[in-house]
Amino acid sequence: MNCLLVEPEEWDAETGRARIGGRRRRHAEEILKAATGDELRVGIVGGRIGRGRIVALDAEALELDLSLDEDPPPKRPLELVLALPRPPVFRRILSTAASLGVERIRVVGTARTEKSFWQSHDVREGAIRERLLLGLEQARDTVLPAVELLRWFEPLIDDVLGPGLVGRRGFVAHPGAPTACPHRVEGPVTLFVGPEGGLLDHEVARLVSIGFEAVHLGERILRVEPVIPLLVGRLFD
Amino acid sequence: MNCLLVEPEEWDAETGRARIGGRRRRHAEEILKAATGDELRVGIVGGRIGRGRIVALDAEALELDLSLDEDPPPKRPLELVLALPRPPVFRRILSTAASLGVERIRVVGTARTEKSFWQSHDVREGAIRERLLLGLEQARDTVLPAVELLRWFEPLIDDVLGPGLVGRRGFVAHPGAPTACPHRVEGPVTLFVGPEGGLLDHEVARLVSIGFEAVHLGERILRVEPVIPLLVGRLFD
Repeated sequence: MNCLLVEPEEWDAETGRARIGGRRRRHAEEILKAATGDELRVGIVGGRIGRGRIVALDAEALELDLSLDEDPPPKRPLELVLALPRPPVFRRILSTAASLGVERIRVVGTARTEKSFWQSHDVREGAIRERLLLGLEQARDTVLPAVELLRWFEPLIDDVLGPGLVGRRGFVAHPGAPTACPHRVEGPVTLFVGPEGGLLDHEVARLVSIGFEAVHLGERILRVEPVIPLLVGRLFD
Repeated sequence: MNCLLVEPEEWDAETGRARIGGRRRRHAEEILKAATGDELRVGIVGGRIGRGRIVALDAEALELDLSLDEDPPPKRPLELVLALPRPPVFRRILSTAASLGVERIRVVGTARTEKSFWQSHDVREGAIRERLLLGLEQARDTVLPAVELLRWFEPLIDDVLGPGLVGRRGFVAHPGAPTACPHRVEGPVTLFVGPEGGLLDHEVARLVSIGFEAVHLGERILRVEPVIPLLVGRLFD
């Protein structure tokens, strides 16, 4: 945890005081070995970052006096469209994507997306938010990426991704695509990352028909999890 | 598993027959739903790749008739020097690094590397080999990266990394370094990735003193696990 995130309702903007319990209190006590008078890096979820001086720390709560003098880092102009992976991978990808500064995540269904994954409690709003917050804490960011769940491929293409590509470049990572993924592109990007078993050829063709560029990452077939940071490192500075 | 890997001793080069048990037999039966007559992508560990026709599949063993007509994909000219992370992360990084085509992995100790991690059974040779094989199966590669464990930082610097940098570029990822990590570099690279808590400034200075370039990845602090594919995507095509 490189930045302790405080929910807006835990913080009194007039006094500058925040009162926090649960995981974050325990982390401050047990991992950071913090004590009264120490300063921690803090941020308000959705707001500014700065420092918090500990005014009390007991078994109940951590009380901080906040001074918030910085804006969070800018997001990358990146929307990730992700075929829902198996739940443990989904959890890690949410944190990683948030730490990488992804602006928006659309979690989608494709022909090879396991239907049972949609029943997982990891796909519920509260669970998703928890995982995103862990990534923000890691990267000292405060702004949650927007997350949408869009289970059906065809309406996603016509109603969401097609209109959404105006003014953006869209890439779909697909082994065997004729073009290598470029380095350092200008402007906003939408990145489609398919399921572990790959997209079907006609799914790739549909994405290409609405303006996506199919790109390969070399002859090695990679898992979904490393593909996301690999593409972020490739496409952005 | 995109390629079933056969150990040299499981294969009779004269008859072309291989006999396999355990995890790979179960995977062929239960996940791939393979049956006699089917063909699978196969490779010999350390050797060529090709196809294997199933001649028998029962509760004991999978028997294959191999025809090996391709070379494995070339490695990236990349040596990874990795501060030993916590064991579950180490396991995943080994598979990911093997799938990415890393040539050599040096697992090292730094000031902030937890000493207890060295006692983990995941750091034993057999466990490391298993995780590397999973990554090779994913990427349809057969050649194990060389792995060395080098626990002590100072002899590592003088005896191993210094002489090893001749003819290579060395990068150490360090938040706050003055230079951004470049895109697409020519020739072989040695990449130093520190522990989750970061390298100490004097460790970075020691690496710089033997020829490493300290580079940052932007203002976000990232976990070690996504940093590795991010750097591979950045530095290579």
